[in-house]
Amino acid sequence: MRLSRYFLPVSKDVPADAAIVSHQLMLRTGMVRQNGAGIYTWLPLGLRVLNKIEQIVREEMDRAGAVEMLMPTIQQAELWQESGRYEAYGKEMLRITDRHEREMLFGPTNEELITDVFRAYVKSYKALPLNLYHTQWKFRDEIRPRFGVMRGREFLMKDAYSFDLTEEDARRSYQKMFCAYLNAFDRMGLTAIPMQADTGPIGGDLSHEFIILADTGESAVFCDGALLDVPAPGLDLDFDGELSDVMERRTQYYAATEEKHDEAEFAKVPEGRQVSARGIEVGHIFFFGTKYSEAMNATVQTSEGENVPVQMGSYGIGVSRLVGGIIEACHDENGIVWPKSVSPFDVGLISMKPKDETVSGVADDAYAALQAAGLDVLYDETDERPGSKFNRMDLIGLPWQIVIGPRGVEAGMVEVKNRKTGEKSDMKLEQAVELVKAD
Amino acid sequence: MRLSRYFLPVSKDVPADAAIVSHQLMLRTGMVRQNGAGIYTWLPLGLRVLNKIEQIVREEMDRAGAVEMLMPTIQQAELWQESGRYEAYGKEMLRITDRHEREMLFGPTNEELITDVFRAYVKSYKALPLNLYHTQWKFRDEIRPRFGVMRGREFLMKDAYSFDLTEEDARRSYQKMFCAYLNAFDRMGLTAIPMQADTGPIGGDLSHEFIILADTGESAVFCDGALLDVPAPGLDLDFDGELSDVMERRTQYYAATEEKHDEAEFAKVPEGRQVSARGIEVGHIFFFGTKYSEAMNATVQTSEGENVPVQMGSYGIGVSRLVGGIIEACHDENGIVWPKSVSPFDVGLISMKPKDETVSGVADDAYAALQAAGLDVLYDETDERPGSKFNRMDLIGLPWQIVIGPRGVEAGMVEVKNRKTGEKSDMKLEQAVELVKAD
Repeated sequence: MRLSRYFLPVSKDVPADAAIVSHQLMLRTGMVRQNGAGIYTWLPLGLRVLNKIEQIVREEMDRAGAVEMLMPTIQQAELWQESGRYEAYGKEMLRITDRHEREMLFGPTNEELITDVFRAYVKSYKALPLNLYHTQWKFRDEIRPRFGVMRGREFLMKDAYSFDLTEEDARRSYQKMFCAYLNAFDRMGLTAIPMQADTGPIGGDLSHEFIILADTGESAVFCDGALLDVPAPGLDLDFDGELSDVMERRTQYYAATEEKHDEAEFAKVPEGRQVSARGIEVGHIFFFGTKYSEAMNATVQTSEGENVPVQMGSYGIGVSRLVGGIIEACHDENGIVWPKSVSPFDVGLISMKPKDETVSGVADDAYAALQAAGLDVLYDETDERPGSKFNRMDLIGLPWQIVIGPRGVEAGMVEVKNRKTGEKSDMKLEQAVELVKAD
Repeated sequence: MRLSRYFLPVSKDVPADAAIVSHQLMLRTGMVRQNGAGIYTWLPLGLRVLNKIEQIVREEMDRAGAVEMLMPTIQQAELWQESGRYEAYGKEMLRITDRHEREMLFGPTNEELITDVFRAYVKSYKALPLNLYHTQWKFRDEIRPRFGVMRGREFLMKDAYSFDLTEEDARRSYQKMFCAYLNAFDRMGLTAIPMQADTGPIGGDLSHEFIILADTGESAVFCDGALLDVPAPGLDLDFDGELSDVMERRTQYYAATEEKHDEAEFAKVPEGRQVSARGIEVGHIFFFGTKYSEAMNATVQTSEGENVPVQMGSYGIGVSRLVGGIIEACHDENGIVWPKSVSPFDVGLISMKPKDETVSGVADDAYAALQAAGLDVLYDETDERPGSKFNRMDLIGLPWQIVIGPRGVEAGMVEVKNRKTGEKSDMKLEQAVELVKAD
């Protein structure tokens, strides 16, 4: 992408209400623009990151056997009256009346709607297990939206819903999502720690929050530091195989959010490994059995011909929140430092003298060579001063920068900078392409 | 995808209110489920088609130089009060009040919001031309939603917005979109005819609807049949070059929707070429100059230092409506016949005897070989009777079917069926893979 044809409105102004670094950096880099309290437009740079995160989550859901579909944003009130949550949900639910005076709402979550879809089609145990997911915009009318996209009102969530015949099967489905989540967050460059959590308004007796540690986290969390060193299960995990061990490898250690914290248990964690920190919730999974299927009469026939309510769980990942979460974990004093997997572009290319034909010729060739290597390139061929071009490239945090200047061109070299380490080195263009490609 | 692990709830029941064939087929194939008047869940098969259409539109927008971003679904009433459309839009606008009694709405279109984004960042002619687009769910509270996803209330639309310094530049931006639309529809296997159209509540003096002909179309349309034979501009079109000719090649012929129809002009079309038909609107483009930029004070500075309101156009494609539109154009008595480019899978693979180890071994190998060739395969390894497996595969309309049965396995052959022609032939698996891949 040529910068002169792109829309990248970086800015030095940080609004006073942007209290945390991710919010500040998303505004400064022109990733988002606020359109109202907790409501954001995703500008081109921000949308690229959002899409990459969504795609990683999609791939890990698919790998774990979940099937993608898409539910609408607007739901009928009737379904929530059936489950009993219409009144219970309170003011966070955005309630709407249409032109025919029908009561509707902007979905804050989808347990009711997916249960309605399920009961319309599935009648037999033979269709199970089943896990359906979607990534769709939700709305929760937070009383005080804040921290940018970290606690917005309109936000993008991936939510999956599992359906099983028995509680044992349902706990297996829960394990699959538990493992898929660890892999998904790992691919984003995050260490997400599963912690015992309250089930809140979703219900059920088994629940984990996936927490990344950050000083700006909204909740206090406590865990055994050993957890930080347990690697993710890995993409070659056999989801049809035994997963209890993978889960046990983590649940053997103490880890709990404030609500579930037990001082006495925490005290048993070896000294030096007691981690008491702030955390950002980026995922939350629930097993709630028959809470919705009983209320909404979603039953399946067993092999003996008996009709039983289906066993359910639900599994959420805050896709738009993760954009902020990753920035909280990955930045320095000069701006964002994207993990490669979610970076909006693979590499930034800077032409130092776009009006010099020789320099711009080499830069154009470099742009073509990088694209031919399958890399996504942001090519700064604007006629601004070098300082502002370097600062902008640092600010938006692409993993690699390649600089084409007159001196290098003369020597047949380009300058390559690693954004994270700050290390710079001169090399031939072909080497630079190989280096970035191999990363 | 193994069918036993997929969610494909085909059904023989067609609800009485499904009046047109695309609506009937989308329900029968389990592509969508209605959740309320004009509100649909996209089940897995339907979502795959929706995503393919969205991706084709995205690629053609990018090729024409438009830049993708994403605006939220919920907008503040203030912006619409500024433009004067808040009251004018009437009951089709879904109006919402939040917990703080702020007036909001579910966006039916985005001229106001994009103008607000633009004026916040762009101050100089140097940033122009600029074309920003997004694909986002919209809501229009139709009084009588009908025809399934063809006239739903919650629908997916791609809308692009161009910004230019002069009217001449703006008309060039309009031409770019005109050409990009022709290519996009062509890639979907559709003949879309640009027709002079009313501008309606969007405003402006230049507008084309892109219409596909279908008996079930909502509007009467009139055109010169010669238009049906003009090929799309092609993907190698130079969008930086001269586009007037490409547009002229079409606008020289008579083509108008009912509102703009001129009997006297139509009478001049040579006899035998006068097409009077029903049409489905799948795209609509507008040049409206400074209608919104003046009302909302979106100005740019010229090279002489003067501030002038920016020249704008908007360009919509009905992404979810297209799913129905394509089915209206592409079906037979046995079901849907997908154009390859938007088919939910490239090929269907049927194992006739999944309980026979030899047959299922060969079928498994075929599944692996097709996937290895980069094809998206729906693999029916269910234990149902052959008739229902064949019928289902015909109904969902994948371009190719490969059938693995005991007799073929013995002879070292598979049966390949072309869904469109109905032609069947026996060949070796490798040949079948090549045939489908080359299509």
